[in-house]
Amino acid sequence: MHAITIPEPGGPEALVWAEVPDPEPGEGEVLVDVAASAVNRADVLQRKGFYDPPPGASPYPGLECAGRIAALGPGVSGWSVGDQVCALLGGGGYAERVVVPSGQLLPVPEGVDVTAAAGLPEVTCTVWSNVFMVAHLRPGETLLVHGGSSGIGTMAVQLAKSVGARVAVTAGTAEKLRRCAELGADILINYREQDFVEELRAATDGAGADVILDNMGAKYLDRNVQALAVNGRLAVIGMQGGTKGELNLGALLAKRGAVTATSLRARPAAEKAAIVAAVREHVWPLLSDGRVRPVVDSTVPMREAARAHQLLDESGHVGKILLVTAD
Amino acid sequence: MHAITIPEPGGPEALVWAEVPDPEPGEGEVLVDVAASAVNRADVLQRKGFYDPPPGASPYPGLECAGRIAALGPGVSGWSVGDQVCALLGGGGYAERVVVPSGQLLPVPEGVDVTAAAGLPEVTCTVWSNVFMVAHLRPGETLLVHGGSSGIGTMAVQLAKSVGARVAVTAGTAEKLRRCAELGADILINYREQDFVEELRAATDGAGADVILDNMGAKYLDRNVQALAVNGRLAVIGMQGGTKGELNLGALLAKRGAVTATSLRARPAAEKAAIVAAVREHVWPLLSDGRVRPVVDSTVPMREAARAHQLLDESGHVGKILLVTAD
Repeated sequence: MHAITIPEPGGPEALVWAEVPDPEPGEGEVLVDVAASAVNRADVLQRKGFYDPPPGASPYPGLECAGRIAALGPGVSGWSVGDQVCALLGGGGYAERVVVPSGQLLPVPEGVDVTAAAGLPEVTCTVWSNVFMVAHLRPGETLLVHGGSSGIGTMAVQLAKSVGARVAVTAGTAEKLRRCAELGADILINYREQDFVEELRAATDGAGADVILDNMGAKYLDRNVQALAVNGRLAVIGMQGGTKGELNLGALLAKRGAVTATSLRARPAAEKAAIVAAVREHVWPLLSDGRVRPVVDSTVPMREAARAHQLLDESGHVGKILLVTAD
Repeated sequence: MHAITIPEPGGPEALVWAEVPDPEPGEGEVLVDVAASAVNRADVLQRKGFYDPPPGASPYPGLECAGRIAALGPGVSGWSVGDQVCALLGGGGYAERVVVPSGQLLPVPEGVDVTAAAGLPEVTCTVWSNVFMVAHLRPGETLLVHGGSSGIGTMAVQLAKSVGARVAVTAGTAEKLRRCAELGADILINYREQDFVEELRAATDGAGADVILDNMGAKYLDRNVQALAVNGRLAVIGMQGGTKGELNLGALLAKRGAVTATSLRARPAAEKAAIVAAVREHVWPLLSDGRVRPVVDSTVPMREAARAHQLLDESGHVGKILLVTAD
């Protein structure tokens, strides 16, 4: 088969489409013929040599995919060869075939095409595990989503609205904010022109956000704590603004607040399977009945993954950038 | 009646025993004849002028007391005049009488004398709300308690042991550590001579603490994150080492960790009542059957509260320092 390899870390040109050995499904795993994968920020870090795959994971990038089951390893039940699936991966999605533990498989939701489904596992599992399983967003509460037009952001806005929460987003252009509004966002903040702490306070009678989903890390840490409501929960899922920041524990204590930080990739298989099962139970029905939709920015042939990474680096996209194996 | 007043903020001598008006119980409140109160770090901050009582609270210090119900305000049920009680207070415990919302009352546990009971509400409510309600310490997990010989610490050790957790403590002298061991602590760390991160790792096969109960705030923030296990929860309840510290979000994310910070005093009455109800359900039976005991360091006449504050400042105590109204 072919896969995107990284002979030497570097810029987008470091991604090389090459012939590689086919993977073999082990105990409890299935082999998937990949129709599409999707680009995540972690892939860029891996390309640059900053994010090695966890032990046992494929060396190729790609944290999610969709396609058809080509073979079952020993001990797999509930899935058949030929099933259309999407999957949360520890790596290896940028390839024509990939093996995945069966607990990380999801059916392609009714009414969603297989290509678009490739962009669902990371955003649904990340948003559901953080905003709902960790931060317990409740109806009537306010969620602040940084990067509201990203893949994660567009899913967070929709899922939060589906449970009856109020949603604030930050984004860097009026067009991105307009797209967030179409998805249901109530409070639109242009972070290039406005202070999100002030805007959020103004829009919530001074209360702030009950939950914040943050991809900026250190750069926003202090302001995120300022923006939290009493009993507020800050869920950090990315560190695009650095890893070490000053935490004002006095301010956090006055709000009885919580700061959590998680990632999906390093979790043991049992935790990933628990998240995937929760997503299948709670999010998949919303996708099947059309209340929540995958938001796709663009679709690029997988062999041209370098171009997809350039699109991500330029940050002009809204929603997911997909990679397809068929040209 | 008499109460400890603070005419001018300052050192222990700022505490002045003076004649003041009797309080009157309002809707849902009871009037308690105070037999004893107890000293908390927050009282010292209040004495120094750094911690004003929350709106509606008594101006006198004292966050807990025990005694007898002297009168019921309108709308109180489940309690009678003459009942021996202890209570979580928003303030006013350093006085001969105090009013308290009935949701913050607890019976004096069987087998515990009323003086010792005055030191139970803050430690039981703080430990239960943080270690169990927020951080969800589970049997078999490891709890690290900083200041293991303090009032909070001695209760945290006992409650964690009672649910089958493993307990590590830090303290500053061999004698304090010996007392912690008597209460059941498994891992004893002298913070003046040892690095708690290294000691904890050595004692847990490198795993670290599942839950940390911290009273130091900024000074320990980075090392506490280092000491956390995967899925670990750091519960900050005091800031004796400062309020602003560097948080390594990268390290926190690698562990999928959580940092929370809470206090009891500023919570609305409904939240306090929920915590008190949980403590009555889960902790009171352990006190009544003697499996958990109040640890009392010393008992000082309330009019000499200045001396009790000196004892606290000197930090030679183990357990609670109590104040009694009868000389």
